[in-house]
Amino acid sequence: MSAIGATRGENVTAAGVIALLENGRILTTPVLRAAVARLAPPMDTVASYHFGWIDQTGRPADGDGGKAVRPALALLTAEAAGAPAETGIPGAVAVELVHNFSLLHDDLIDGDEQRRHRDTVWKVHGPAQAILVGDALFALANEVLLEQGTPEAGRATRRLTTATRKLIDGQAQDITFEHLERVSVQECLDMEGNKTGSLLACAASIGAVLGGASDADADALEEYGYHLGLAFQAVDDLLGIWGDPASTGKQTWSDLRQRKKSLPVVAALAAGGPASERLGELLAADAKNPENDAFNEEEFAMRAALIEEAGGREWTSQEARRQYATAVAALDKMDMPEEINRKLVGLADFVVVREK
Amino acid sequence: MSAIGATRGENVTAAGVIALLENGRILTTPVLRAAVARLAPPMDTVASYHFGWIDQTGRPADGDGGKAVRPALALLTAEAAGAPAETGIPGAVAVELVHNFSLLHDDLIDGDEQRRHRDTVWKVHGPAQAILVGDALFALANEVLLEQGTPEAGRATRRLTTATRKLIDGQAQDITFEHLERVSVQECLDMEGNKTGSLLACAASIGAVLGGASDADADALEEYGYHLGLAFQAVDDLLGIWGDPASTGKQTWSDLRQRKKSLPVVAALAAGGPASERLGELLAADAKNPENDAFNEEEFAMRAALIEEAGGREWTSQEARRQYATAVAALDKMDMPEEINRKLVGLADFVVVREK
Repeated sequence: MSAIGATRGENVTAAGVIALLENGRILTTPVLRAAVARLAPPMDTVASYHFGWIDQTGRPADGDGGKAVRPALALLTAEAAGAPAETGIPGAVAVELVHNFSLLHDDLIDGDEQRRHRDTVWKVHGPAQAILVGDALFALANEVLLEQGTPEAGRATRRLTTATRKLIDGQAQDITFEHLERVSVQECLDMEGNKTGSLLACAASIGAVLGGASDADADALEEYGYHLGLAFQAVDDLLGIWGDPASTGKQTWSDLRQRKKSLPVVAALAAGGPASERLGELLAADAKNPENDAFNEEEFAMRAALIEEAGGREWTSQEARRQYATAVAALDKMDMPEEINRKLVGLADFVVVREK
Repeated sequence: MSAIGATRGENVTAAGVIALLENGRILTTPVLRAAVARLAPPMDTVASYHFGWIDQTGRPADGDGGKAVRPALALLTAEAAGAPAETGIPGAVAVELVHNFSLLHDDLIDGDEQRRHRDTVWKVHGPAQAILVGDALFALANEVLLEQGTPEAGRATRRLTTATRKLIDGQAQDITFEHLERVSVQECLDMEGNKTGSLLACAASIGAVLGGASDADADALEEYGYHLGLAFQAVDDLLGIWGDPASTGKQTWSDLRQRKKSLPVVAALAAGGPASERLGELLAADAKNPENDAFNEEEFAMRAALIEEAGGREWTSQEARRQYATAVAALDKMDMPEEINRKLVGLADFVVVREK
């Protein structure tokens, strides 16, 4: 059963999307690994652990490197602009580097001990390495793009830089929200647009920019990516409360443990009614006692049930569908090969039906 | 009495250099403040505290924003390339942003509680803000440059990005060295070249690049800046052991407390003789007992005396003079107005005779 129960598009099968993601990984990983190998020791080793290429003892591993939606987008949208998929590779690598820079820092800031079923970098190699390797990946992202030395690479770097600053804004908003008693649905969507939408928007346009697309076409693809990001995040927020730890690789009730003001929570608080009010009282008590983390599983289960009863789960499922629809509609603003359009729709389908 | 007892150049007085630094600050600060104001709250406030524009309570302050050598270099070298000083402003701002990104992260990593006579950001606003605001300043640096939208800005961003990655490499080497029993003089110079030389090299070339300089001229200015950085760092290493806390704003014996393998230490270890051997024994004992920080003032004073007796202090003073000479000689590789050459020499004089 998927998180929001959407149906896949008719044209690209699940197997087709998985092949698309795999192809993106195959084209991108060697370039990514070569870039990471430039880092001074021990940062090269720490980064290789983070990407799942080696285990804690330094032995080669075949780790779960994540879903790799971003690289697939960068390559597909190079093709959308009429260029070969390979043109998008430096963009795909740069976006992956920025994404992983943000994961390294966010896991440390949030105190997350697990990612992709493994201990996080700060847990294994310490906070200093998590900070430094994150910084290094961010620098490397710009370096990989700019050493192309073309005007297109300059434009791509500018879009990536702006996306990265928004991503950092989003993380700052996210941790601020954890300490607030109330956050509006709009504030939450703004935060998630910054934190998740901006980098997916960049992933969806960077290949096209490298392939020589016009600003208007790049903007249409950014719009697709931005709303795809919001759909992605809505599903993530559902999985953050009701996801199966065996699939997600995170703890049960992960977002509730961290007091995240995610979409289901803010939608439930905004809904009114007895469950909404009870939830509001609990969160108000939390805000007065920010250090209390002595909750047990039953407390989290009860809160999750209140959020569902107040309608937060259903609203977030519908929001994922709304954002999905906006994303797919944006594709029509650009003239692109029908086959690429179908693949981009297929990727969007995949994002909203995933279970991890 | 200066740290290395060098004499100033005859042509630019101390007052002239101070006016040069002040002019750089006046031209750069409004653009820097406008850039920082773009950050999402509370990062704008945290960054303003870091730069000394406000105090801990948010009231306007007239803080010590640092020596501002880098902005002055960026503006002067725009003029070296025949462009107006103002052409260098986005470069000056970008380099200052990268420099302060690295200070925010390094202070957290090193556990430094004081900078410029004030509590550091992680101490006042917490580690999460130190990480995030550092990240945001790094992103902003690239944004400020790239939004110029010129090919020169693309070239400048590429140099800045490479310098930033080397700077991060240098910080990684620095913290690795703290846990090693022995580091060679050459390894220490490589580390300091990455950590301090690369960004000063960029500061010294970025204005010229924005002003349309050839790659050869930009490389000559980078060479000046790189060796100036090594001279700067040698003086810093002397001040890190023998500096007056009232001037430096740091603790007494600051680098010894942090077990830094700075130049005076590695030179003393490499020198041989009784004092060198005794120092080696003490550091070997430290390495076996990395958690011991129960040393008192007398222990640090005794170690500093051993370093001096072994010749580490004198060698580092001479090294600062050698690097200074190499820096100044590099200026002759570029055809520039005589007045600008004299100012760049004056700045180098200032760097090696400073007491903080």
